[in-house]
Amino acid sequence: MTIDEVSPFERPNVAVTLSSLRDATPRTLTELTHSTGLSRPTVEDALARLIELGVVEDGAPAARAGKVGRPARLYRFRPEAGAVLGLDIGEHRIVALLANLTGATLARVSVPVAAAASGDERLALVRTAIRKVLAGADRDRSHLWAAAAGTSGIVDPDGRVVLSHVLPDWTGRHLGSQLRRSLPCPVRVENDANLAAVAEHWRGVAVGVDDVVYVHASHRLGAGMLIGGRLHRGFGGAAGEVGGLRMLHWDEAARYLTHQVHNADGEDRDDAAERVFAAARAGDPAAIEAVEEFAHDLASGIAAMVLTVDPELVVVGGRVARAADVISDPVERRLRALCVRPPRVAVSILDDEAVALGAVRAAISYVEEHIFRL
Amino acid sequence: MTIDEVSPFERPNVAVTLSSLRDATPRTLTELTHSTGLSRPTVEDALARLIELGVVEDGAPAARAGKVGRPARLYRFRPEAGAVLGLDIGEHRIVALLANLTGATLARVSVPVAAAASGDERLALVRTAIRKVLAGADRDRSHLWAAAAGTSGIVDPDGRVVLSHVLPDWTGRHLGSQLRRSLPCPVRVENDANLAAVAEHWRGVAVGVDDVVYVHASHRLGAGMLIGGRLHRGFGGAAGEVGGLRMLHWDEAARYLTHQVHNADGEDRDDAAERVFAAARAGDPAAIEAVEEFAHDLASGIAAMVLTVDPELVVVGGRVARAADVISDPVERRLRALCVRPPRVAVSILDDEAVALGAVRAAISYVEEHIFRL
Repeated sequence: MTIDEVSPFERPNVAVTLSSLRDATPRTLTELTHSTGLSRPTVEDALARLIELGVVEDGAPAARAGKVGRPARLYRFRPEAGAVLGLDIGEHRIVALLANLTGATLARVSVPVAAAASGDERLALVRTAIRKVLAGADRDRSHLWAAAAGTSGIVDPDGRVVLSHVLPDWTGRHLGSQLRRSLPCPVRVENDANLAAVAEHWRGVAVGVDDVVYVHASHRLGAGMLIGGRLHRGFGGAAGEVGGLRMLHWDEAARYLTHQVHNADGEDRDDAAERVFAAARAGDPAAIEAVEEFAHDLASGIAAMVLTVDPELVVVGGRVARAADVISDPVERRLRALCVRPPRVAVSILDDEAVALGAVRAAISYVEEHIFRL
Repeated sequence: MTIDEVSPFERPNVAVTLSSLRDATPRTLTELTHSTGLSRPTVEDALARLIELGVVEDGAPAARAGKVGRPARLYRFRPEAGAVLGLDIGEHRIVALLANLTGATLARVSVPVAAAASGDERLALVRTAIRKVLAGADRDRSHLWAAAAGTSGIVDPDGRVVLSHVLPDWTGRHLGSQLRRSLPCPVRVENDANLAAVAEHWRGVAVGVDDVVYVHASHRLGAGMLIGGRLHRGFGGAAGEVGGLRMLHWDEAARYLTHQVHNADGEDRDDAAERVFAAARAGDPAAIEAVEEFAHDLASGIAAMVLTVDPELVVVGGRVARAADVISDPVERRLRALCVRPPRVAVSILDDEAVALGAVRAAISYVEEHIFRL
C-alpha cells in the first residue's frame, strides 16, 4: 500500500495519529487517543493504515511496574521506513548524504571534481555520488522519499540555475529536471548558502534563533538568511547577493588570502588560504595583515546585510570557519564599527557538511509537508 | 456594555459574527448563519451583544424584488462606533489623522514645529494636535479605541526611542508611556519609515505586494520594509539603517540638493531641494548634475537593501516623491547597474500623509487583533 491509496476520508485521522508519534517516543493506544482527541476505534483504524504503510510498527508491550493484567501494546514511528538524499554540488567536490526520516545519517560520500569540469561531467559525478551513497547504506533508489541539492548561484523554484558565477557552465541548466530523471522522488534544488543557513538552524549554531544572516565563506562568498525562522530567498531568489555593491569589495575579499598562489605551482586556493591562516596564527606580520584585510572586506558585505535586516545572529561558515581563532576578532571589530546594533557572531561547527545537511533537512521538510500531512 | 463584559463563552460566536460583517456589506440573519456556520439562535444572541456594544446596527430591511412577505432585517457593521488616531511626529511638523474603524478619515491637522524644539516642546505640540484633530471631528478622547505614532529613529516594542539622529533630544525618551498618559487607549510607537511602508501596502503603490523596500527620502533618508506582507523591524528594531555603510554616502545624499542653503538667508532645506528639482526640470545643467549625484547616493543605499532581501518592489516616498519626474530615471539606472535582479521601482502618491496613514493602519490592526477578536 502507498500513501496515495489511503482514502481521502481517512487521511486527516491518519495524519494526526502519525504526528503524535513523530517525536519518536513509543506510545500506547490509550495515550494516542488522548493526544489526538480521536476515538479509540478511529485511532485503531489509523494505526492499521500506518502499519500497512510501513511508517509505524507495534513493538514490545509497555512495561508497567506494579500493574496487573496484559500490558498495553506500544506503537512506534519507523524513521527507517524511507530515506532522504541531500546533495552538495560544489566547485571542487560533491557531497552526498543519505539519511532516514528523522535525519540520522545512513551514509556519506564525497567525490572530488575539477573546478574546470563541464556541466555534463559534473552531473555525471553527481550520479556517481548518488550510486555510491545508496550502496554505502545498502539501499536503492526506490527507498528515496525526497531529495534536495544545493549548488552555487541563483536557482529558480523549479530548479533551474538562473545564474552562477562560480560554475559558469551551470547557468541556464535545468538541474532540477536533470536530477529528477535519475531519481524516482521529488527533488528540490536550492542555493548552497541558503541550505547551509537551514542546516545551522536545524543542527548548528543557530538552533532556536529565527533571524539569522549566514555567510558561506571560502575563496568565494555567498549568503543565506532566515527571517522569522523561514528561509528568505527573495522575490527572484537573489537575496544575499551583496557582491553587487562593488565598492565593498566583498566578491574579491579572498584575494588577500590567495594572491600568492600561482596556477603553475599547483597549489589549491583553499590550501593557500589555510597556509595564510596558519602563518597568522604563528604571528607572521604579513599574514596577520592579509587576514585583517580579508576580514575587513568580508565584514563590510556582512554589514550591508546586517544593517538591512538587523538579525539576531550572524553565522560565518564554509572553509573560513576553520580559522575562527584568527578571523572572528577582526570580523566582529569591523561589524561593531559599521553597525547601528552589532549582532552576535557565531562560527559554524558543521564544517564542510553544512550544505548537504541543509539539503537533507529540505528533503525532510518536503516529506513532512507533502507526504506526512497526507 | 463594554467588550470586557462579554462572557468568555459567548466571545467566539460574537467574534465570528462580527468578522462576517466587517467587509461593510449589510447582511440578513439567514446570510449570517450561512457565512458563520452557527445556528440561527446563536447568531441572534451574538447580534444582540454586538448591537449592545454599538458596533452593529439593524438597519433598513432588505429590498427583495418580486418577493412576498415581510422583508428580512439587514445588519450592518458600524465603523463609526469608535475612532483611531494616527500621528506623525516629524522634524518640522506634526500630523494627526483621526479615522473611523475602517480607516475613513474624520479629521486631519498639521502643526508646524521648529527643528530645534526641545523634546518637551515637541510633545506639547503633539498634545495640541491631538486636541485639534478630535475637536475637528467633534469627538473626544473617550471615542478613541487605539492610537499609533510614527517618529524618526529606532523605537523599541514598548515605545521608547532608542536612538534618533534627526531628533537628538528624543533619544532615550519613553514616548509610548508619555503618550499613554494623555490618551485613554492603547498606543503604539513605531519608526516613521516603517509606518509609511505599511501605508503603501494598505493604500499606496504597494497594495498586493508582499516583499517591499520603502525609502522615505527628504533631506534625511530612512527605510522600512515588508517581508511576506509583514513589517520587518529587525531583532533590535534597526532594520533598514543602511546609513551605517558610510562608503555608500547614503546619509549625506541630500547634500547635493541643499549645499547652496545658508542658514542666514532663512531658506528651508525642503525649499532648497524643491528649487534644485525645479531647475533640473527647466534644464539647468548644474541642477541636473546635482540631482544625478543625489540619485546616485540614494540608489546606492537602496541597492544595499535590494541586494540583501531581493524585494519585488522598491517604493520611493517622502518629499522627494514630488520630484518623481526628475529622480526616477537616475535612481533606476543606478539600481540596474548594481543589482543582480533589479526590482520594480514605484514612487509614492501618498505625499506627506504616508506616516500618519500608516499609523492609522497600525491602530486599526490593534483593534482587529485585540478588540475584534475578543
